Amino acid sequence: MAKLTKRAEDYSKWYNELVVKAGLAENSAVRGCMVIKPYGFSIWEKMRDELDKQFKATGHQNAYFPIFIPKSFFEKEADHVEGFAKEAAVVTHYRLKAKPDGKGLMVDPDAKLEEEYIVRPTSETIIWNTYKNWIQSYRDLPLLINQWANVVRWEMRTRLFLRTAEFLWQEGHTAHATKQEAVEEAEKMLQIYKNFAENFLSIPVHTGVKSESERFAGADNTYAIEALMQDGKALQAGTSHFLGQNFAKAFDVKFLNQDGKQELVWATSWGVSTRLIGALIMSHSDDYGLVLPPKVAPIHVVIVPIYKTDDQLEAIRQKITPMMQELLNKGITVKFDDDQKQKPGWKFAEYELKGVPVRLAIGQRDLDNNTVEVARRDTLDKKSYSFENISAQIEALLDDIQQNIYNKALKFREENTYKVDNWDEFVDVIENKGGFVLAHWDGTSETEALIQEKTRATIRIIPDNAPEEDGKCIVTGKPSKRRVLFAKAY
Amino acid sequence: MAKLTKRAEDYSKWYNELVVKAGLAENSAVRGCMVIKPYGFSIWEKMRDELDKQFKATGHQNAYFPIFIPKSFFEKEADHVEGFAKEAAVVTHYRLKAKPDGKGLMVDPDAKLEEEYIVRPTSETIIWNTYKNWIQSYRDLPLLINQWANVVRWEMRTRLFLRTAEFLWQEGHTAHATKQEAVEEAEKMLQIYKNFAENFLSIPVHTGVKSESERFAGADNTYAIEALMQDGKALQAGTSHFLGQNFAKAFDVKFLNQDGKQELVWATSWGVSTRLIGALIMSHSDDYGLVLPPKVAPIHVVIVPIYKTDDQLEAIRQKITPMMQELLNKGITVKFDDDQKQKPGWKFAEYELKGVPVRLAIGQRDLDNNTVEVARRDTLDKKSYSFENISAQIEALLDDIQQNIYNKALKFREENTYKVDNWDEFVDVIENKGGFVLAHWDGTSETEALIQEKTRATIRIIPDNAPEEDGKCIVTGKPSKRRVLFAKAY
Repeated sequence: MAKLTKRAEDYSKWYNELVVKAGLAENSAVRGCMVIKPYGFSIWEKMRDELDKQFKATGHQNAYFPIFIPKSFFEKEADHVEGFAKEAAVVTHYRLKAKPDGKGLMVDPDAKLEEEYIVRPTSETIIWNTYKNWIQSYRDLPLLINQWANVVRWEMRTRLFLRTAEFLWQEGHTAHATKQEAVEEAEKMLQIYKNFAENFLSIPVHTGVKSESERFAGADNTYAIEALMQDGKALQAGTSHFLGQNFAKAFDVKFLNQDGKQELVWATSWGVSTRLIGALIMSHSDDYGLVLPPKVAPIHVVIVPIYKTDDQLEAIRQKITPMMQELLNKGITVKFDDDQKQKPGWKFAEYELKGVPVRLAIGQRDLDNNTVEVARRDTLDKKSYSFENISAQIEALLDDIQQNIYNKALKFREENTYKVDNWDEFVDVIENKGGFVLAHWDGTSETEALIQEKTRATIRIIPDNAPEEDGKCIVTGKPSKRRVLFAKAY
Repeated sequence: MAKLTKRAEDYSKWYNELVVKAGLAENSAVRGCMVIKPYGFSIWEKMRDELDKQFKATGHQNAYFPIFIPKSFFEKEADHVEGFAKEAAVVTHYRLKAKPDGKGLMVDPDAKLEEEYIVRPTSETIIWNTYKNWIQSYRDLPLLINQWANVVRWEMRTRLFLRTAEFLWQEGHTAHATKQEAVEEAEKMLQIYKNFAENFLSIPVHTGVKSESERFAGADNTYAIEALMQDGKALQAGTSHFLGQNFAKAFDVKFLNQDGKQELVWATSWGVSTRLIGALIMSHSDDYGLVLPPKVAPIHVVIVPIYKTDDQLEAIRQKITPMMQELLNKGITVKFDDDQKQKPGWKFAEYELKGVPVRLAIGQRDLDNNTVEVARRDTLDKKSYSFENISAQIEALLDDIQQNIYNKALKFREENTYKVDNWDEFVDVIENKGGFVLAHWDGTSETEALIQEKTRATIRIIPDNAPEEDGKCIVTGKPSKRRVLFAKAY
């Protein structure tokens, strides 16, 4: 197995290699679309199951809407169409037929659709067209629905997980009787994303709102969680939109309020996608491979036997069987790798590459001493543990790993966040150091565009927790009341 | 709420109404595509989770492959293209643009794809094109992969769940070193489908193989489970295909065997879809609404309080709280419907419509007597239960309902299965009675086509459990060794 490129050498190459070598995903024969391989998909399943539980616990239900959206639906919301028309996969025909020469297939010109369909890039339009029939009175509200689905955006430059023509995601679409309730919903879902990122994926995130120019096409306000990757670039890991009454207007969705009057419905939408797998990789992994927080790891513990004879292997198996059962009872996934075709050293490297949080190695001397060698993936430390009470020790170790991975990422973010008060310093940090930059901005789209043009840095968010503070815009010197968060971003 | 059409009056209308009224699904603005509503989707989630558990327990892993398939891939397997070309949704362009007059959108002619993509109707071709890179040696086999996905087949006549342009399904795609192993895999998955249908959905099914003309496009052999609906029509509820080496040939997938020789890989594929929800409805439901076997019911028990005063409601709530906790601990889903806007009678009808297996009603007299009224949805029987040990009684009742629903469906199937030995009798049963017909057939596609042409009945399967028996074909009189299963089918 060829060695992984080191991060310091070429971060982007390291990422691409790691995704493939660890068996997470690969490019497919279809431009910009990926194949998510079993190991990568099992990480997605863990994310999905946890989020799904949290959505349901907060009163949301799953449903499923058509993959196709009639072209005319896109025309109804002006900003929305602007955002998505340029990357739309368009279905124009519904049949193939044999070519006249009999060699191969052609699109049947007689099977042209009267109206073209777009493969959904997001489902606001088809869903609000449906909600029109579901909502008559305030009794029908709130409507709290989520969909797990594939979506397609014809991106020109794609990268596995980070930006693909097709990706998997969830999209929540809620309808409310009041503006306040919709805003609260959008904020509540942002908090769910934040808690999920921090406590499940061990990724610290900033929460806040996007500047106007970075808003979702059709939103009145976009909330986001933003994370910092190891190479100093930011990554938007989830968004939650307050859509105002824009889609209700576009699709004429009104309800009879408690006073018997017709009102337009208020909306939110919110989503996270397989992009989170990219964020996970670039937050924690190292030159040896993946580093996975235990909560999202498909395998928590791998046991590698070190033996020469079949009798030794059998003795090891006898020794570990009760422990494996105990771990299983604690909800800890264990793999005993007794594959005879590979040597222990090969296995060690393989499980490091795959980011299994805890590796146990056990040989004859361990059997004699009632010990086991425990290696933790996050620090690469190895230590001999007594077999006494081993399953409880491993359980505690997994908790410690989960927390340690988070702490490390948080420390990295803090060390790579800069308060900057003038333009030269700003350019210096963005170009030479990377990371998050907290700086004053005059609040105009013109200044924002100028900064992006000169440095490629963008306003990631106007952070929730930024204190009020008098300052001057680093570009125009105009007064500003709080710092906003800049970075170059994925 | 308008009453449901009775089954005896118009079965098809009853079905369509029930799907909509019970909140399972509805037609969308996109031709032939449905919206699966939250209640319907929660049934699908139950099915999916159970099947997924069984697939994983038998060594399968989930993965995800692109939704688009290059047109040229379809051309590689002759039978396969024949089967799917006529119902292909074709993506020809990747961008929309504003119309010259500024009013609305048009497909951008400059964004025409060099090669068209088909929205997957099934994924053999894209998957075997991928497997080519995954399989080099016998060590890479077997490859046991499943995908949960949406697929599109441009059906001209659609019906909710039964036949829709887009549907949700799982498709297993496995690769093996030997023919025997692939055949065993296809048969194993058929057994999983049968057990699932019978023990989870309470739908008795026949297993067997399809006649040549009914085989999956590209298969050497198609196994199926076939169920009988209440109107006497059969429904194919799941299929498992032995694909031979057809896709390995088409995509040049070879492996180095243990003797160091290159061999073509053997394949299977197998799937069930949201069509199962249609089968579930038409197997068990009645003129009052859905009848759901407890294992697939989103809510197992609903509790309706009968009260006049707030104090009475509070007393009822106090009474049932410990029971609700006990039921929850047993994994039983309970809903306490204390909605004040609706009367008990309305609620009774609503939960009958939705097929909740057990309904408890509790009022002041029950409180006085330490009793509760228990209504079971399958038989519509009502009975007063002592509150002593009530949660254990309900648990036992749910088991009984699960079994009773199965027994009833089995009895129906047996009463509607006919052994027939001549043509007139065959026509009479097919046209006047419906149901399954066991009859001798000479084994030729010509006879099969003739029977279908004259009666619209098809050979559903050549059943596994049909005993060897000398007989004569009901059409040609030629000798036959076993009866095959005929029916009109969905």
